[in-house]
Amino acid sequence: MNNYAIIVAGGSGIRMKSDIPKQFIEICGKPILMHTLENFKAYDPEMEIVLVLPQQQKDFWIELCHKHHFNLTYTLVSGGKTRFHSVQNGLSATHGNGLVFIHDGVRPLVSHATIRQCAQQASVCGNAIPVIPVHESVRQTSENGSQMIDRSRLSLVQTPQVFDTNIIKQAYEQPYDEQFTDDASVLERMGHTICMVPGNRENIKVTEPFDLIVAEALLRNKPL
Amino acid sequence: MNNYAIIVAGGSGIRMKSDIPKQFIEICGKPILMHTLENFKAYDPEMEIVLVLPQQQKDFWIELCHKHHFNLTYTLVSGGKTRFHSVQNGLSATHGNGLVFIHDGVRPLVSHATIRQCAQQASVCGNAIPVIPVHESVRQTSENGSQMIDRSRLSLVQTPQVFDTNIIKQAYEQPYDEQFTDDASVLERMGHTICMVPGNRENIKVTEPFDLIVAEALLRNKPL
Repeated sequence: MNNYAIIVAGGSGIRMKSDIPKQFIEICGKPILMHTLENFKAYDPEMEIVLVLPQQQKDFWIELCHKHHFNLTYTLVSGGKTRFHSVQNGLSATHGNGLVFIHDGVRPLVSHATIRQCAQQASVCGNAIPVIPVHESVRQTSENGSQMIDRSRLSLVQTPQVFDTNIIKQAYEQPYDEQFTDDASVLERMGHTICMVPGNRENIKVTEPFDLIVAEALLRNKPL
Repeated sequence: MNNYAIIVAGGSGIRMKSDIPKQFIEICGKPILMHTLENFKAYDPEMEIVLVLPQQQKDFWIELCHKHHFNLTYTLVSGGKTRFHSVQNGLSATHGNGLVFIHDGVRPLVSHATIRQCAQQASVCGNAIPVIPVHESVRQTSENGSQMIDRSRLSLVQTPQVFDTNIIKQAYEQPYDEQFTDDASVLERMGHTICMVPGNRENIKVTEPFDLIVAEALLRNKPL
């Protein structure tokens, strides 16, 4: 079995109001992306890691690695025009049978329990995605204004989205469609049923200054 | 104009895994509920505050007020069987024309900009609720499994939900229905259109240990 984590980091710093791309912003003294990579390596030191970065960010990243004495082993792959194309590039660096864990570079706080449950479920179903319930009331807008909708039927989707390697590679041979908002939606287009497992609330996507404050607080409180 | 803030605090400590009700848990050295009350008083010292608390929690609350030298002026009202009945009790303590700001006791971090925008919109429309966009992919479960839904059409609803006093009092004369999940849904049942204004992401509802960590970090970072 060859298991791979494909860590996708294609962000800019725009929403973060930052000069540097969000995945390179430091929390607790280290770029977010390093926390994410180390988290996966800690989960399973045998897992091969593929990091997908925009071509123009590679030099800066390598500089950061020197600065932080970051010497984890991984394969570095260039990103594409969209997230879809970046994942395609990441998948092309995988080989053999096993599972692929496709994960956002700016989600440093996924728990090992979440990763483990995704892995177990994907071994059975061929895929698994972590989800959490919605805690707030939800309204949906339409041409007729907005309506309350039943939040108990909604789930917020996180990563890693975990797949049988051969199945997800086949799914990513489809032509790009802008309605592919995550990896599960690419697989779903082929008629597969998506399996959901419980995620963890700490597993936030760090995209705004608000998230930086939250991520820093959560990392400090993280049980080892 | 008589403006009122009705602060509803009916929670237990169950989801918080705490012996004391969540609204009394301390963050930054003070019960959450005190932060919330002070926040409204700071927004507008002229606003009258009605605090709705379960009858059996009143003594403990008064003890906490002594301990923390909390001497803000407000009207204390007993809660009812459900949130709907608690708000009814709160509304019965309001008089005259003006606006009512109905707010969760465990949302200490609503910004003054959010309150102000709700007030302005409610002055025009008769109601306003603060909402924020959904940042994650969303799936909806049905009998046929789960489907991705368009998150750009979804909004997460916060409080304060702000209303013309006379209109909301009339709405709360309707018989209770368990489908009333918030105050807007009570008004909506009468055929009113709900007006949405931008909320602030910091305005979280503190219900789980996760939220305590986040709220504490956000309060420490809060601009004065």
